[in-house]
Amino acid sequence: MAKELKELTRSEENYSQWYNDLVVKAGLAENSAVRGCMVIKPYGYAIWEKMHDALDRMFKETGHQNAYFPLFIPKSFFSKEAHHVEGFAKECAVVTHYRLKNDPEGGGVVVDPDAKLEEELIVRPTSETIIWNTYKNWIQSYRDLPILCNQWANVVRWEMRTRLFLRTAEFLWQEGHTAHATREEAIAEAERMIQVYRRFAEEWMSLPVIVGHKSPNERFAGAEDTLTIEALMQDGKALQSGTSHFLGQNFAKAFDVQYLDREGKLEYVWATSWGVSTRLMGALIMAHSDNNGLVLPPKLAPIHVAMVPIYRGPEQMAAVLERLGSLAEALRAKGLSVQVDDRDNVRSGFKFAEYELKGVPVRLAMGPRDLEQGTVELMRRDTLEKETVPQEGLVERIEGLMEEIQRNIYRKALAFRDSMITRVDTWEEFCEVLDTKGGFVSAHWDGTVETEVAIKEATKATIRCIPLDAEEEEGRCIHSGRPSHRRVLFARSY
Amino acid sequence: MAKELKELTRSEENYSQWYNDLVVKAGLAENSAVRGCMVIKPYGYAIWEKMHDALDRMFKETGHQNAYFPLFIPKSFFSKEAHHVEGFAKECAVVTHYRLKNDPEGGGVVVDPDAKLEEELIVRPTSETIIWNTYKNWIQSYRDLPILCNQWANVVRWEMRTRLFLRTAEFLWQEGHTAHATREEAIAEAERMIQVYRRFAEEWMSLPVIVGHKSPNERFAGAEDTLTIEALMQDGKALQSGTSHFLGQNFAKAFDVQYLDREGKLEYVWATSWGVSTRLMGALIMAHSDNNGLVLPPKLAPIHVAMVPIYRGPEQMAAVLERLGSLAEALRAKGLSVQVDDRDNVRSGFKFAEYELKGVPVRLAMGPRDLEQGTVELMRRDTLEKETVPQEGLVERIEGLMEEIQRNIYRKALAFRDSMITRVDTWEEFCEVLDTKGGFVSAHWDGTVETEVAIKEATKATIRCIPLDAEEEEGRCIHSGRPSHRRVLFARSY
Repeated sequence: MAKELKELTRSEENYSQWYNDLVVKAGLAENSAVRGCMVIKPYGYAIWEKMHDALDRMFKETGHQNAYFPLFIPKSFFSKEAHHVEGFAKECAVVTHYRLKNDPEGGGVVVDPDAKLEEELIVRPTSETIIWNTYKNWIQSYRDLPILCNQWANVVRWEMRTRLFLRTAEFLWQEGHTAHATREEAIAEAERMIQVYRRFAEEWMSLPVIVGHKSPNERFAGAEDTLTIEALMQDGKALQSGTSHFLGQNFAKAFDVQYLDREGKLEYVWATSWGVSTRLMGALIMAHSDNNGLVLPPKLAPIHVAMVPIYRGPEQMAAVLERLGSLAEALRAKGLSVQVDDRDNVRSGFKFAEYELKGVPVRLAMGPRDLEQGTVELMRRDTLEKETVPQEGLVERIEGLMEEIQRNIYRKALAFRDSMITRVDTWEEFCEVLDTKGGFVSAHWDGTVETEVAIKEATKATIRCIPLDAEEEEGRCIHSGRPSHRRVLFARSY
Repeated sequence: MAKELKELTRSEENYSQWYNDLVVKAGLAENSAVRGCMVIKPYGYAIWEKMHDALDRMFKETGHQNAYFPLFIPKSFFSKEAHHVEGFAKECAVVTHYRLKNDPEGGGVVVDPDAKLEEELIVRPTSETIIWNTYKNWIQSYRDLPILCNQWANVVRWEMRTRLFLRTAEFLWQEGHTAHATREEAIAEAERMIQVYRRFAEEWMSLPVIVGHKSPNERFAGAEDTLTIEALMQDGKALQSGTSHFLGQNFAKAFDVQYLDREGKLEYVWATSWGVSTRLMGALIMAHSDNNGLVLPPKLAPIHVAMVPIYRGPEQMAAVLERLGSLAEALRAKGLSVQVDDRDNVRSGFKFAEYELKGVPVRLAMGPRDLEQGTVELMRRDTLEKETVPQEGLVERIEGLMEEIQRNIYRKALAFRDSMITRVDTWEEFCEVLDTKGGFVSAHWDGTVETEVAIKEATKATIRCIPLDAEEEEGRCIHSGRPSHRRVLFARSY
């Protein structure tokens, strides 16, 4: 098993294999018997739970409530919003029957042909349609607005090529769906929520992101505007990490949701939706990890401190474990999660490798000499630096380290990301940067879908976003040469 | 709308309609456009979240971790455990296709016949099969045991007659699935978890329950023993509120899950599973509520205190709201959830009715005279008692009241439940009690499935459980007259 731990593919050899190895060997997730569906293992789920809890608090602080809507959506609902049906009603799981029966020929169970549904049900790929069909009954007057609901749920999109966390047929997510009396209020909501995502990425995931608008071609199916947070992975590819959509009155019109305003006039309701998913797990892993394994920001780490006793014989073991136990208690009293590893069937070197693989922020090792001298060996995962420190003041030191590691991981990712934004002004440069350096390419674009599609076909790069803070700057489109008023960010992406 | 609030059907007139009215009018849940699937509305979901959080803590305190397994289960998995297939592989949602396409004849979207799955997928009705198929890869030796996993998830059982929360096609639940090296350890786990459920019901839901074994006929499909908590509703019907199953080696054998024990011998693994669902919402509602609406135990109430200002004109309103605001702050500082109702478009009488309907444990009303005299009117929802109390010391008074209400609701439910357990020794008495009084009937049973089935057919009553604390007592079966060694509890049930 120590050997198995070492068998992490090196990222520079095969990034994609390194990622998959890491997810599986660190115990985060694995493929299941159902094509494209993953099993999220306890260690991976513990990270997701911390993401869930932090996001959920942020949603509630911004006035949102949770609710729950059906897993199934009648097929006909998808046809009601013209763009939405193009984007979502295609690759999806379709329920056609509601009963199995014993095979009369003895071959186990078979689908009962008599139990065919009159109308097929779609396993939700996203819930705008069923939710707006529901909101219709909740909204009569302006006094019923705004509605600020969020749902934590599983969704299914029948992806052909899947990758753990990044693209799976079933995934977990949250989807916010809000209803407003005015266009301005809905736009403000969509902007508020993309900033919540940005703050979550930066403060919890130590992940710098660029906030911007999607180009029309990359918008959510049914949206008038899509805001996105875009992160950069260590292989130079971008990852869309969260989106917030201003849906205009599209779904209100599709499902006939109107309200009486203060003047007694009937108006269609304005909508937003916004979501992040278990894809964030992929972003977290790929942004920070190295060839030794995961690097977790302390705020999302299921275990903050791992303690490994070094000993010969049961007497030494008992003495060291006793001291570690009382240190662990002191740390737990401060809200830190501590694992004292008293396994006697694996060597300490194996344990060290395992905690590095699992990205535990701080590892302590203590032997008989440390006991005598009142010291302990401390290693921080983000820098792999080891030092021998006094046991006295250890709790404060580790509390401080947690904040320092959280910040340091962010700084490192930010420095890398900033070094990977390249301004180019010619098509030649554009292609060269994409092929040699990767990362974000900041370039002028003429604003047309044709050009965007042509660039994608030529280079596989897409417009990741038009950054919110993009400055006015006159220039010429790197592809068509036509005039442009600001730069946008291109990248190859997941 | 005030009229609408009053339109709660009286429980003595039509209990079932009263329940449905209450669920809908209190804003807990409603039926959706998909047959049998409900929408859980924000107020209802807030209660479920509190249940979730409390249970999740209790699971973690007993050493369990959360994980997530696929929504879909290959059809063939159901055939692997003989009893399980009988119980679960029948009324379920079957996914047969993975793509829709535009109708070539222009009729919206249709199922693409080319996208038929080779093997149908079943939307999980429960996850033993997919989980044990996964555990197979997680377990090699005794060192990998025990596995103590829990999953929070949605499941689907295609029920023909559905009722909000009590029986819906899709519902939310948690399912624990544990794997053990020995029979004894698995039995102890199943017992531990039914006691966790009992404690949750009593301490959080203020709901007294009887813990016992199910009779063989009422066991979970695939279990060797099923433990249950049984609660009594105010109409005298029982509600199974949670179950914990000792599964023996049935699933380990079906999915070939073996481990090497300390002596190097291959053994099959022992299993348990246990679950509670959104059905608990139904239990909570039916156990405590009255003709004015919900009665919520404070530990599960989304709003602890509602404050209603009484005033004439904006000046009085401002003065009263200011005082209420500072009282609210003081209560919130103690962790209480407070709603200050400053709506000026509804009368205070309407507000009073609404908070009664929603089961808010304490309602305060304050008018100009209260301002002068330093008092406030306080009503507790459980007893509907009103009194005028000083504002001084109000926070401590309300903190104390929360505990008192939590206990009082339990005491009341317990007194009712205890008054509804009737010992009978003849068939005549048995039928009479069921038809006139209802509740639990404690009677002798000969231990056979035939008798159990005959009693059910004759009376619609089933054996709810063989209580854990049932005393040895010689007697004769009320139906067959054959010898019996202990009493069991019968009831009509949901």
